[in-house]
Amino acid sequence: MAIDERLQRMMEFSDTLDGLKRVSRRNLIMDGSREENSAEHSWHMAVLCMFMQEYAPRGIDQFRAMKMMLIHDVVEIDAGDTFCYDVKGYEDKAEREQAAADRIFGLLPEDAARELRALWDEFEACETPEAGFANALDRFQVLRQNLRTDGGTWPRYGIPKSRVLVRMGQVQTGAPKLWPVVLELLEGAVRDGILEDDS
Amino acid sequence: MAIDERLQRMMEFSDTLDGLKRVSRRNLIMDGSREENSAEHSWHMAVLCMFMQEYAPRGIDQFRAMKMMLIHDVVEIDAGDTFCYDVKGYEDKAEREQAAADRIFGLLPEDAARELRALWDEFEACETPEAGFANALDRFQVLRQNLRTDGGTWPRYGIPKSRVLVRMGQVQTGAPKLWPVVLELLEGAVRDGILEDDS
Repeated sequence: MAIDERLQRMMEFSDTLDGLKRVSRRNLIMDGSREENSAEHSWHMAVLCMFMQEYAPRGIDQFRAMKMMLIHDVVEIDAGDTFCYDVKGYEDKAEREQAAADRIFGLLPEDAARELRALWDEFEACETPEAGFANALDRFQVLRQNLRTDGGTWPRYGIPKSRVLVRMGQVQTGAPKLWPVVLELLEGAVRDGILEDDS
Repeated sequence: MAIDERLQRMMEFSDTLDGLKRVSRRNLIMDGSREENSAEHSWHMAVLCMFMQEYAPRGIDQFRAMKMMLIHDVVEIDAGDTFCYDVKGYEDKAEREQAAADRIFGLLPEDAARELRALWDEFEACETPEAGFANALDRFQVLRQNLRTDGGTWPRYGIPKSRVLVRMGQVQTGAPKLWPVVLELLEGAVRDGILEDDS
């Protein structure tokens, strides 16, 4: 048998990953034709890491940020995507996602499981510059998706500018040079009538 | 204005990337419900790079292999996905994809464009160990997708084992330790009646 237990576990994990292609997010892809799924979103985020690192705080480990991006949503295979403005969904989000992380990363051989789990924990804790940057790009990208789809989730779920600003706060610390950009884009969105100014 | 020309170009490139989410491949996602798109495929491939590097030839630069994976299909935004068994489609594939690479990577600021284009050229030339490994994983993954979907593209397009073996040849050089695995999986597929043995 060419397939040993170690490879068997890797293939089981890889086949499980396929499930992320069926997890829908609330925001639309940019032609507005359908909701984005979390696998293609994760791809988009990792590519952004390839050429936007100059917006990260100095001295970031780009490779680690990119790996975090690739697996930051994997737990949604079990736990589903929780809409960022869903207060009720957030009540048990952490618990659901911890259980998912235990199961899904646990499919891998121990050394690989440990590495990927540590990356996911780091992203979630959002305390290192890499995690802060990755989380900031994650917020920034949703802003772009909404701008390209007539406001996307903002008008669809009645989210006014004050709530978007709170959500975007992560950009201020994780990618500070993008913060004035966020403010400018949100002002533009208000002018274009796709975001309600409740200030 | 917080948005300078450099960032403007990055955002234009990023928004263009969104188009890869609408490029369909021939193979199905693993629950068989729909064709896979090239963005989510690229994500899956990059994640495989995170934990399967032990199947690469010794001394591979994992970071570069992963970056190649992330952008290897970006040209399909303009050129479309060419089915790997489509002889006619392959006649002008290189030409279509070169033009697409010129346009799409050219959206980026020059330094970033140069880096990403070099990675794509390297993947295509398939001469370095990193490119060989990335190309091998790309082939291996389609095998897994087909195994999980009753043969997927094999019965659907009448592809017998001899043609699959030629296509999989890249695994032999790019990830040699996976080659006996490929042979075992293909034998299993023949036994299960989802792949025609034309030897």
